[in-house]
Amino acid sequence: RATLGVGMVGYAFMGAAHSQGWRVAPRFFDLPLDPRMVAVAGRTASGVREAAARLGWQDSTTDWRTLLTRDDVDLVDVCTPGNTHAEIAIAALEAGKHVLCEKPLANSVAEAEAMAAAAKRAAASGVHAMVGFTYRRVPAIALARQLVAEGRIGTVRHVRAQYLQDWIADADAPLSWRLDKAQAGSGALGDIGAHVVDLAQHLTGELITGVSGMLETFVDERPVAAASSGLHATAGTERGPVTVDDAAIFTARLSGGGLASFEATRFAWGRKNALRIEINGSLGSLAFDFEDMNVLHFYDARDDARVAGFRRIIVTEPGHPYVGAWWPAGHGLGYEHGFVHQVVDLVRALGENRAPEPTFADGLQVQRVLAAVEDSAAHSSTWTPIQTGGR
Amino acid sequence: RATLGVGMVGYAFMGAAHSQGWRVAPRFFDLPLDPRMVAVAGRTASGVREAAARLGWQDSTTDWRTLLTRDDVDLVDVCTPGNTHAEIAIAALEAGKHVLCEKPLANSVAEAEAMAAAAKRAAASGVHAMVGFTYRRVPAIALARQLVAEGRIGTVRHVRAQYLQDWIADADAPLSWRLDKAQAGSGALGDIGAHVVDLAQHLTGELITGVSGMLETFVDERPVAAASSGLHATAGTERGPVTVDDAAIFTARLSGGGLASFEATRFAWGRKNALRIEINGSLGSLAFDFEDMNVLHFYDARDDARVAGFRRIIVTEPGHPYVGAWWPAGHGLGYEHGFVHQVVDLVRALGENRAPEPTFADGLQVQRVLAAVEDSAAHSSTWTPIQTGGR
Amino acid sequence: RATLGVGMVGYAFMGAAHSQGWRVAPRFFDLPLDPRMVAVAGRTASGVREAAARLGWQDSTTDWRTLLTRDDVDLVDVCTPGNTHAEIAIAALEAGKHVLCEKPLANSVAEAEAMAAAAKRAAASGVHAMVGFTYRRVPAIALARQLVAEGRIGTVRHVRAQYLQDWIADADAPLSWRLDKAQAGSGALGDIGAHVVDLAQHLTGELITGVSGMLETFVDERPVAAASSGLHATAGTERGPVTVDDAAIFTARLSGGGLASFEATRFAWGRKNALRIEINGSLGSLAFDFEDMNVLHFYDARDDARVAGFRRIIVTEPGHPYVGAWWPAGHGLGYEHGFVHQVVDLVRALGENRAPEPTFADGLQVQRVLAAVEDSAAHSSTWTPIQTGGR
Amino acid sequence: RATLGVGMVGYAFMGAAHSQGWRVAPRFFDLPLDPRMVAVAGRTASGVREAAARLGWQDSTTDWRTLLTRDDVDLVDVCTPGNTHAEIAIAALEAGKHVLCEKPLANSVAEAEAMAAAAKRAAASGVHAMVGFTYRRVPAIALARQLVAEGRIGTVRHVRAQYLQDWIADADAPLSWRLDKAQAGSGALGDIGAHVVDLAQHLTGELITGVSGMLETFVDERPVAAASSGLHATAGTERGPVTVDDAAIFTARLSGGGLASFEATRFAWGRKNALRIEINGSLGSLAFDFEDMNVLHFYDARDDARVAGFRRIIVTEPGHPYVGAWWPAGHGLGYEHGFVHQVVDLVRALGENRAPEPTFADGLQVQRVLAAVEDSAAHSSTWTPIQTGGR
Repeated sequence: RATLGVGMVGYAFMGAAHSQGWRVAPRFFDLPLDPRMVAVAGRTASGVREAAARLGWQDSTTDWRTLLTRDDVDLVDVCTPGNTHAEIAIAALEAGKHVLCEKPLANSVAEAEAMAAAAKRAAASGVHAMVGFTYRRVPAIALARQLVAEGRIGTVRHVRAQYLQDWIADADAPLSWRLDKAQAGSGALGDIGAHVVDLAQHLTGELITGVSGMLETFVDERPVAAASSGLHATAGTERGPVTVDDAAIFTARLSGGGLASFEATRFAWGRKNALRIEINGSLGSLAFDFEDMNVLHFYDARDDARVAGFRRIIVTEPGHPYVGAWWPAGHGLGYEHGFVHQVVDLVRALGENRAPEPTFADGLQVQRVLAAVEDSAAHSSTWTPIQTGGR
Repeated sequence: RATLGVGMVGYAFMGAAHSQGWRVAPRFFDLPLDPRMVAVAGRTASGVREAAARLGWQDSTTDWRTLLTRDDVDLVDVCTPGNTHAEIAIAALEAGKHVLCEKPLANSVAEAEAMAAAAKRAAASGVHAMVGFTYRRVPAIALARQLVAEGRIGTVRHVRAQYLQDWIADADAPLSWRLDKAQAGSGALGDIGAHVVDLAQHLTGELITGVSGMLETFVDERPVAAASSGLHATAGTERGPVTVDDAAIFTARLSGGGLASFEATRFAWGRKNALRIEINGSLGSLAFDFEDMNVLHFYDARDDARVAGFRRIIVTEPGHPYVGAWWPAGHGLGYEHGFVHQVVDLVRALGENRAPEPTFADGLQVQRVLAAVEDSAAHSSTWTPIQTGGR
Repeated sequence: RATLGVGMVGYAFMGAAHSQGWRVAPRFFDLPLDPRMVAVAGRTASGVREAAARLGWQDSTTDWRTLLTRDDVDLVDVCTPGNTHAEIAIAALEAGKHVLCEKPLANSVAEAEAMAAAAKRAAASGVHAMVGFTYRRVPAIALARQLVAEGRIGTVRHVRAQYLQDWIADADAPLSWRLDKAQAGSGALGDIGAHVVDLAQHLTGELITGVSGMLETFVDERPVAAASSGLHATAGTERGPVTVDDAAIFTARLSGGGLASFEATRFAWGRKNALRIEINGSLGSLAFDFEDMNVLHFYDARDDARVAGFRRIIVTEPGHPYVGAWWPAGHGLGYEHGFVHQVVDLVRALGENRAPEPTFADGLQVQRVLAAVEDSAAHSSTWTPIQTGGR
Repeated sequence: RATLGVGMVGYAFMGAAHSQGWRVAPRFFDLPLDPRMVAVAGRTASGVREAAARLGWQDSTTDWRTLLTRDDVDLVDVCTPGNTHAEIAIAALEAGKHVLCEKPLANSVAEAEAMAAAAKRAAASGVHAMVGFTYRRVPAIALARQLVAEGRIGTVRHVRAQYLQDWIADADAPLSWRLDKAQAGSGALGDIGAHVVDLAQHLTGELITGVSGMLETFVDERPVAAASSGLHATAGTERGPVTVDDAAIFTARLSGGGLASFEATRFAWGRKNALRIEINGSLGSLAFDFEDMNVLHFYDARDDARVAGFRRIIVTEPGHPYVGAWWPAGHGLGYEHGFVHQVVDLVRALGENRAPEPTFADGLQVQRVLAAVEDSAAHSSTWTPIQTGGR
């Protein structure tokens, strides 16, 4: 079995999650290639060295470009903030390395277009690129996709998608890079809105063709963080500006004619990670909430009306996507399993020389939606069509 | 104790519900006036006679105008389709009768303005008008209003309001007057969207200042109903056009600066009467779903973080609004109790010569929002401000 | 249409609920007999007079025996504490009056046996008796019974039934007649345990053949109530003994071989009226909780495993038991509707000269179970068989 | 940092789960000792070799006794069926190795007593033993224990504990070693009932002092498994006897005077892994269901009654037990994380030369309860006291 040497850039929240994916996937799944955690790159020598040891990487470097010249690195895994994605991913693809890039694909449509173009060029020589919308790989979401694809809910009429968090609902929560437009590109919209945009398109198999949106920053100045770890930071005495949106809401039209509504906010007190999506079709409905992530709700309009009702499917059974490789029936999975499944799907695609999904073109399409929401919001919510060709 | 003679116009779904309100309220609540169910008016003599007997009215008439000339009628309760509201309500007010008018107040802003003006004139001589947004009187909703008014959730940042049904999700469900623009004025928007617009404004104590919306008719032709009863009808072989919206979605801005999103649809398979409203404020959140109508969810951000969580308040305890008059703790109420509470609030206001709420001005404001949504939808979702003065 | 003259004894919580049943049933349901609320009997003249006016009875009396001699009374409705049931019900039956008797049927098996014998004698001359286990008439429960009877869950293997309340979980809640063995017969066991015993037998169509039980009184002395209203009372300064159980738990065997467990308690903080019953059969499962009373959960083991899950059936659709007579789909009912349905079922049975159910024999069987639990509890939980013959 | 050499015996379901614990714990938690996965023992050479590679063990052996003589093994982790626990664990302790032993501790009280005695002797020389009740380490359960210990729910009055599964509800599901008394000791009682017995005692901090129980085998003959993997097996044509219980129900008394009820079954269709425990105390209540494992429900009776309700605490916040080491707020954990936390707690105790919990004495106490249930069931549910001294 051939090896797949991996070099990772970045080792914060996403780096830790991706590392868990690389470490654990081969323990539970049969993979056509044997992943090797070759090296991790980061800006500070001590930090990246410590991270390598803790996360299980054989080597570390402060220069991500060195990963591109190593023969034992076959794939570059990009876990840095969005403003660096384009440079790293394009360079890696041009160096003949496969790329897994965290979402959102980039901080602008222009960057995303360049990346998608680079991915297209690379594909011609069998070098593949994938963007990390891991929620697709939650078993309940994967089951939902199966049911839509099989026609179980018919034609899609409604999507209502929300991603609600409360981690900065407190006006005194400190600044972090995620609140700085220069690094993060956007706020709730790009960070969590991107996930529900991708899921809406992925689950329905349709594209968003236009939007009308609003953005809001409720708290425009916050304490500068004295120290940070993960998403959490300690407030100092200085204050700095919040340059991204705190919340975004928008309506949309799907390519199949359905109506969709979206919301992304970090100001919904009590909602910790409520990624919710509900789809109503002509033959049934599906509903999911990440706060109860092992469950999918399914209403089948063809059930006898007397006993019809949303079925609370506990997606932990052997016949459910990904589940058979784990534990006996009924033993739920957690957040990080999506990262394990991402490695599985990626490595299997590479092993068969198939393009893994979601592609950079998919990531670009999400980026176009996000940009259209920003445009619309900047122009009194005016309807803003989205280019869907060339995907 | 003085009597309050009531004459009702219309005896279908709403007429039955209002009748239950008039009959039951005095059995459980102390009222300052003694309601008498004097007469009901309807178009067909046999139908209205049968309805009078079944619903408990002493007399019946095929001419609603006769109610206005009877001395024993003090209040006219308007339960007809929206296209007749203005004529009946204005005539009744001008005849010196109090008016309770079903929602939506009217089928157009112009009619609603005329009604509000008539109500204002009447009020000068102690004649009062009220519009029937009964969901305000569900105990859980009334409790939610108390909590917002007391500042328990702080400044409102988000409202997400949905009214989801599935009663015509089946493309072969027959036509009814509710699908005919001439009678109903609008479809899901005016029928059920009106409820969530009213609740959003009532619960927050704020007004909607602008909207961006979309309407959709998914099924534009349906079998003509051979016979109908309540919302349900039997399909015949002919087909006729659906002239109203099947679904409406819109975003909105609240006068306090918060963001709001709304959805009203009759095409959400599996959702039977899912009037849902969630409000996130700077100090907490509230959530309600009519499918579990005796429950209010409340998140208090001031709770110790370790034990904070949405509280599932079962709103059936003696200290909860309206509940003490009914059964011992824990014995839930149903849909129709809202109509009983409406009678209670109305009669108490009249007994104290106070203006009952919601006023026709409130109803007009809802109408303006609905009209703005239609305007926006007709103009590519363009942002449409709403006049809020003069209320 | 013939009339059915009703005389009611008692006018507290149950009297009010029964009155609502008699008043409302004819407004929504077609009944073969026309119920007339002739007279109510109570101990104090002023109280019963006031109650008659408030509850809608034409006449009142301080001597229940006068009801038995009136020609215009065809049925006696017994809503008094359990210690008086036998005397009143037997006298009424012997006077040729139909009887509706609140549960539990009596305070002892001996009394219940005498009542069942009287009912049997009366039936011979077309005089009928029924015991008021109204939870059978909650639509979700009635639907559950249909599904079991149709074999949808196969052979019953497990029943787990709980009735959890918290109304005296506070040790300073005052005494009421319900805490006095002389009047109430037993505590949580007879008051709320009786309901789940009846439901377990009714829903499964089986009998309980033996039990092993425990009783407990957690708070054996309480403030004497200074004043009371419904289940609620105001504490005075004196204290008196609690002479009934606060909680009961027991295991049981069903006649079909299944295992059952029961719990009744008034000490489950936060549970307001959690009458819960779950049944697991060889082909599926059912679950119900009165705190969400318009919902039945149904698992069909014959569903494709990939999409199997408990269905949350919202029991508010036209095809569901009792529902069609009320509101359009999706408009939930409340606690008191069970009492309306009880009147409907009773009057229909009388109209067709059928024995209404549950019969006094059913009530006796419940009484035998309760007595067996008490016996078992008094003898170290020893297994106590229950006579099931002669029913 | 010193190393902790681990040798594991058995590599099926539990072996895989324990391996994940050993591999992952050092990646997320700071541990005082560095665990080394030295060797795994199993009966078949090829199987154990393959397992070692897949699960991450450096070496493998077909003779578990060789683990006891290796200097690089400091701890033996026993993951075999219950009938072998005593022999292996006692030998390991006597060889000076720490022991982690899967639950239930043994197949009989006599074995468990011998093991507890061996553990006591070993402890004198700093050699420690722990039994693997991993559900204690689900964050929501750990939080529940904190709240009880802090007095937040007051005196315990009720425990209702259930462990409901459906994996052999189908009468044609094949035999496995778990249905063979010789290997498994008991059925649902020992397999899953043991968990809820341990949790009831752990969460309350009390002991069970007596029980009255029933056991049942609904399906006493099943197809012999042709092949098996994990809990799942493929049926062959032969049939063999089921020699263990399919279900157990029992009532119990707690040492603090509270009432408890227990149920363990593999015949509850639709319940995949419903380990549920609800505790009602004098000041509040707690409820947990493993099917929604990241949530704890908490009712605080000291909350203002108007806004009191069960709080749905999403136990994924930094201040919750174990959670801070994982992901940002809101990112739920899964089943296997309990095994990671078990390693963390065990290694930290060993690092500080403390006895890890639960001890073998705790395991023995659970065994005594299980044996008492079997005794009671064999004697018509007679009340069976449980020895609690000497623990």
